[in-house]
Amino acid sequence: MPLPTFQDVQRAAVLLTGIAHNTPIHTSRQLNEISRATVFLKCENFQRVGAFKFRGAYNAVAHLQSDKPVIALSSGNHAQGIALASQLLGKDAHIVMPEPINPVKRAAVQGYGGIVHIPGNPQEAESFSQDLARDVQGEWIEAFNDPHVIAGQGTAALELLGQVNDLDVLLGPIGGGGLLSGTCLATHGVNPKIQVYACEPAGALDAMYSVKENRIVPQDNPQTIAEGLRTSVGTLTLPILREHLAGFFVVEEQEIGKAMRFIYERMKLIIEPASAVAVAPLLRQEPDLQNKRVGVIISGGNVDLSQYFNRLQGKPQ
Amino acid sequence: MPLPTFQDVQRAAVLLTGIAHNTPIHTSRQLNEISRATVFLKCENFQRVGAFKFRGAYNAVAHLQSDKPVIALSSGNHAQGIALASQLLGKDAHIVMPEPINPVKRAAVQGYGGIVHIPGNPQEAESFSQDLARDVQGEWIEAFNDPHVIAGQGTAALELLGQVNDLDVLLGPIGGGGLLSGTCLATHGVNPKIQVYACEPAGALDAMYSVKENRIVPQDNPQTIAEGLRTSVGTLTLPILREHLAGFFVVEEQEIGKAMRFIYERMKLIIEPASAVAVAPLLRQEPDLQNKRVGVIISGGNVDLSQYFNRLQGKPQ
Repeated sequence: MPLPTFQDVQRAAVLLTGIAHNTPIHTSRQLNEISRATVFLKCENFQRVGAFKFRGAYNAVAHLQSDKPVIALSSGNHAQGIALASQLLGKDAHIVMPEPINPVKRAAVQGYGGIVHIPGNPQEAESFSQDLARDVQGEWIEAFNDPHVIAGQGTAALELLGQVNDLDVLLGPIGGGGLLSGTCLATHGVNPKIQVYACEPAGALDAMYSVKENRIVPQDNPQTIAEGLRTSVGTLTLPILREHLAGFFVVEEQEIGKAMRFIYERMKLIIEPASAVAVAPLLRQEPDLQNKRVGVIISGGNVDLSQYFNRLQGKPQ
Repeated sequence: MPLPTFQDVQRAAVLLTGIAHNTPIHTSRQLNEISRATVFLKCENFQRVGAFKFRGAYNAVAHLQSDKPVIALSSGNHAQGIALASQLLGKDAHIVMPEPINPVKRAAVQGYGGIVHIPGNPQEAESFSQDLARDVQGEWIEAFNDPHVIAGQGTAALELLGQVNDLDVLLGPIGGGGLLSGTCLATHGVNPKIQVYACEPAGALDAMYSVKENRIVPQDNPQTIAEGLRTSVGTLTLPILREHLAGFFVVEEQEIGKAMRFIYERMKLIIEPASAVAVAPLLRQEPDLQNKRVGVIISGGNVDLSQYFNRLQGKPQ
């Protein structure tokens, strides 16, 4: 499969115009003071489905040549992205959701018309999905190792670069690398001098080793609350990351919750743990970020606040 | 004391330029579908201190003629607003915070350089504050019954009317009426045809009766989670409300939590209970709002999510 290019990101941006939200930039004097940088948060938490994943999902579904149903394997934001994109494009979507399933996300997928399948055994989700793809004659869309998905994710950075001038650095969280490889293509298509850093939890450090060793280091036993970042990189994302990344920032678990709390208390934004991984290097004043203009892709805002709302509404918790 | 006018709101807007945030408008297809209206949320949750209260507080502190310290009585957003405004304007601020005090709000007040005083007995907060005002030779700024505070609060609606064309209706929550009376002045200064409705919890329905009976009906025993809405209206806000309001929407307690949850799940915005009171009439499809272009002042986003973050960070709850 050919690697996606900057032109693919530009085409995706045209396709998404009027469909994806042009998400806002949020800034904070207090964040700037603490980080000793000038920080611009690209708020994909306000994207449709609450995460950047809608961009890549829509671009991929729109590029399917047939009328066959779409199949995706995800309990997270990719599931919602594919369900909504398929609904908008008039296609059936079968979403295989392995346990543990967040009931809010399941309801959201169904609300977008997605048909939810739950494999009996989480270990068999992959083979279950393949059987399903055969049964329903569906077309599979991978969560990140797909050129159209990568190109779509890159449109967030492209938009950011149109909203904020003279960025020195761009930060984003890394799991499979779909967001980061798209971000690399978009950023260096606009300005090759901007440094793109990947931010990765110490408890799921496969991407950094994959880039160093130029092979896909498997993610066997990830230990992080950033559920979106527990996957390994793919055959398409790895070469793009190797070519473009300026480096990695490794983030400890305790920094993730701290960054989420800071961003809510000071900026009133609820960001998911993966996004907090990209904020944490700023809060600890990484030397390479000081006195720089830093863009951060806030990947999403889907966190489970149901205990809070249940308590507020007097419901059993 | 003379009532504030539209011109006072315009002057406040000039004074606040570059100091208060020009807060964004958020919209949602799903909110529009459910409400059968076209809804524009004016997101004062993204204002400095996380609430519209900064606007009125800054305008009032800036209008003080002397160098005396400022005194305010508030455990809520007014406290933070006065503390930050005083810091920016180089004045000392003494904030009397009656129990129960949210530790996050107390820390925020102190972070803005405010000197926090806690009366031993909550019932004596008023006389405690008066003694303090005498002791420190301070100037008192009331939370809502102050012409500069009212004018400052009106700048949120003025800004909204510059951001969104052709609004038919404006909604806001009502407690003491500072936000709503300022909103009335701003809105009818721009376009007298726009209808301004006050949204009030059924468990704290004094403002509606005050307007009907043209007297300040005291708020003896308010029963609502919308803590910002538990006060009675004042001598300045009542006549403005009587002249301008199109009417009231009364909101039940269970609608408040439901609206907060909806706005988080669909729009990823954390709004305080008072703001949810102004969203609830839309969710129940009030006939007077259907097929209208409706602006809603989202008053703030300061809610206590510390249990959520403590759990996330593995801290005692």
